[in-house]
Amino acid sequence: MEKEPVYLSDQQLWAFVSDVFLRMGHSSDDAYLATDVLLEADLRGIDSHGIARLLGYVRLWEAGRVNSRPNIRLVRETTAAGTVDGDGGLGLIVAARSMDIAIKKAAATGIGMISICNSNHFGIAAYHALKAVPHHMIGMSMTNASPLVAPTYSKERLLGTNPHCWVFPTRQYDPLVFDMATSAAANGKMELAEREGKPIPEGWAMDKDGNPSTDPAILKKGGALLPLGGDFEHGSHKGYGMGAIADLLSGVLSGANFGPWVPPFVSFLQPPADPVGKGIGHFVGALRIDAFRELDEYYDAIDIWTKRFKGAVPANAEKPVLVHGEPEMKQYRDRKKNGIFINEKVFADMKTVADKFKLDLEG
Amino acid sequence: MEKEPVYLSDQQLWAFVSDVFLRMGHSSDDAYLATDVLLEADLRGIDSHGIARLLGYVRLWEAGRVNSRPNIRLVRETTAAGTVDGDGGLGLIVAARSMDIAIKKAAATGIGMISICNSNHFGIAAYHALKAVPHHMIGMSMTNASPLVAPTYSKERLLGTNPHCWVFPTRQYDPLVFDMATSAAANGKMELAEREGKPIPEGWAMDKDGNPSTDPAILKKGGALLPLGGDFEHGSHKGYGMGAIADLLSGVLSGANFGPWVPPFVSFLQPPADPVGKGIGHFVGALRIDAFRELDEYYDAIDIWTKRFKGAVPANAEKPVLVHGEPEMKQYRDRKKNGIFINEKVFADMKTVADKFKLDLEG
Repeated sequence: MEKEPVYLSDQQLWAFVSDVFLRMGHSSDDAYLATDVLLEADLRGIDSHGIARLLGYVRLWEAGRVNSRPNIRLVRETTAAGTVDGDGGLGLIVAARSMDIAIKKAAATGIGMISICNSNHFGIAAYHALKAVPHHMIGMSMTNASPLVAPTYSKERLLGTNPHCWVFPTRQYDPLVFDMATSAAANGKMELAEREGKPIPEGWAMDKDGNPSTDPAILKKGGALLPLGGDFEHGSHKGYGMGAIADLLSGVLSGANFGPWVPPFVSFLQPPADPVGKGIGHFVGALRIDAFRELDEYYDAIDIWTKRFKGAVPANAEKPVLVHGEPEMKQYRDRKKNGIFINEKVFADMKTVADKFKLDLEG
Repeated sequence: MEKEPVYLSDQQLWAFVSDVFLRMGHSSDDAYLATDVLLEADLRGIDSHGIARLLGYVRLWEAGRVNSRPNIRLVRETTAAGTVDGDGGLGLIVAARSMDIAIKKAAATGIGMISICNSNHFGIAAYHALKAVPHHMIGMSMTNASPLVAPTYSKERLLGTNPHCWVFPTRQYDPLVFDMATSAAANGKMELAEREGKPIPEGWAMDKDGNPSTDPAILKKGGALLPLGGDFEHGSHKGYGMGAIADLLSGVLSGANFGPWVPPFVSFLQPPADPVGKGIGHFVGALRIDAFRELDEYYDAIDIWTKRFKGAVPANAEKPVLVHGEPEMKQYRDRKKNGIFINEKVFADMKTVADKFKLDLEG
């Protein structure tokens, strides 16, 4: 018998998720913030980083690997820079609070950049970078992550999908949001293909011996994701380079773990026994636009840029050229109005969480 | 009759190139600096950005499109940020002097970032970012460039090959140098294939109608380079995004031209008649490591990182895994010792320049 598809409004999700974060022991401020980060992913259509992660966070907390009462503190600083120790808190919270510090520093000096150690999964990179927008600042964020990607010419997993994110405010359009994993394809796309029983395209992954693979389950068999570019001839050393930059700024600069030592996000995999730093690392920053240019001139220019790229001649008339951030805002407006589709597996996970905390999911 | 291959020592090249910059009317300081940038490219094996560019610079200067006596000035600043107007000078000089300003700001506040307008071709991005290394700083540089790359789903050239460059000092190894065009392949690789009469791989370029092309001369027929990733399925929106980020920071933030309005580097192509800014734009920055972490701890960590990645298990035992910057330093040491190979076409160009200025190339 076909089950009814589940749609929940963002308010319904908010009520449930914030209750869960509170039951984990977070302060009401931290529970509010973590919920806001998670919901932003679901609203923007980044399903892999929203409510689908909640059970994973709960299990990490049960395993003692998330501190729900973190003392998040700046352990080192200059007027424009600094490092935050996240005290084992959820990255959702740690990175957002660090971005607030970066924004304050940028207000004072023109730029603020914070490296972050001793953190955990930070959700969608765009949430943190987007905080710059109301301040007329450009925002950026990066993170490292547990190793799934093999460097060019290697068959070892040494880097996470380590995203780079930059956000630019505009006047007339949605902010330009560049939020990009540095692998050819995100892990979520592999999982989707596996659920649908479809092969993946060549150029996404390799098997454990370094041969090209189209098996969507190849990561579970010791395979690796390929860096953006796929192979050397098509520039995979650049994707490998972008992933390495995020790892160095997030891990090596902050005092977090890096490369193959980054701890996994899932409770059934143990962190490496020989850590080289503390937790997972992030890097966030804000650039005050009027430190570089009159605000009005900047907004005139970026609106010209955006209009020109949105209006670019398409190769195929049925596929218009996109500017970054536009598809996510289309999802956002749709999901605010019509609710968020929850797939069967995620809904079952939500029930597991509800049972753990004796919460009423239906109510 | 086969011609003898030409090898010149870096000192020989230095003498010739600096004479040329002086004859163009540069101050002795500026001529020294521009020569240093150009020679660094040849020594590091980035042949497309060294002496091969000299005739192009001379022709742009003859066309009145390079100012050899620029008044390079900071037109706006805060303690950590600012914008430089390059006054139409060579980017080689403008970007290097702007990086000096960024380094001074980073010494004072922890970070320094400078956006640059009214400039010209800046040579290899790595030169500018590498200036941070002796100061125990991380360096970065980006530039926009005249349009050759079509955004995902478009057949219009709207972006240059707009590189991102980041440089990280290490203690025991060569600095890690990530210097990456954001197209699948650099234009220089197309030219090389054309000279050798070989087709290019699919995934590098398209024809003017947006169809895949393996013709190395396709750019001359109205075609376009593809962003890193190649097509949407393999993440070309990420390469397009990286190119856009460099364009926005270099052009939109600084007051330079951007997107399809960036003026060409070659004198036989005219700049757009309707500029949206001044000249070409760049973006450079420096991050003081000890603003984030004790220097010794940073150097310990990055040496562990570098050793681990250099020692990664290769997929093919004959192709060791590389860390970024290593192949270029291998070239550097070899060319310092054995001289720099000058191909026939470049040597002919050098003779053209020598004749223009009545310089003795052989001497």
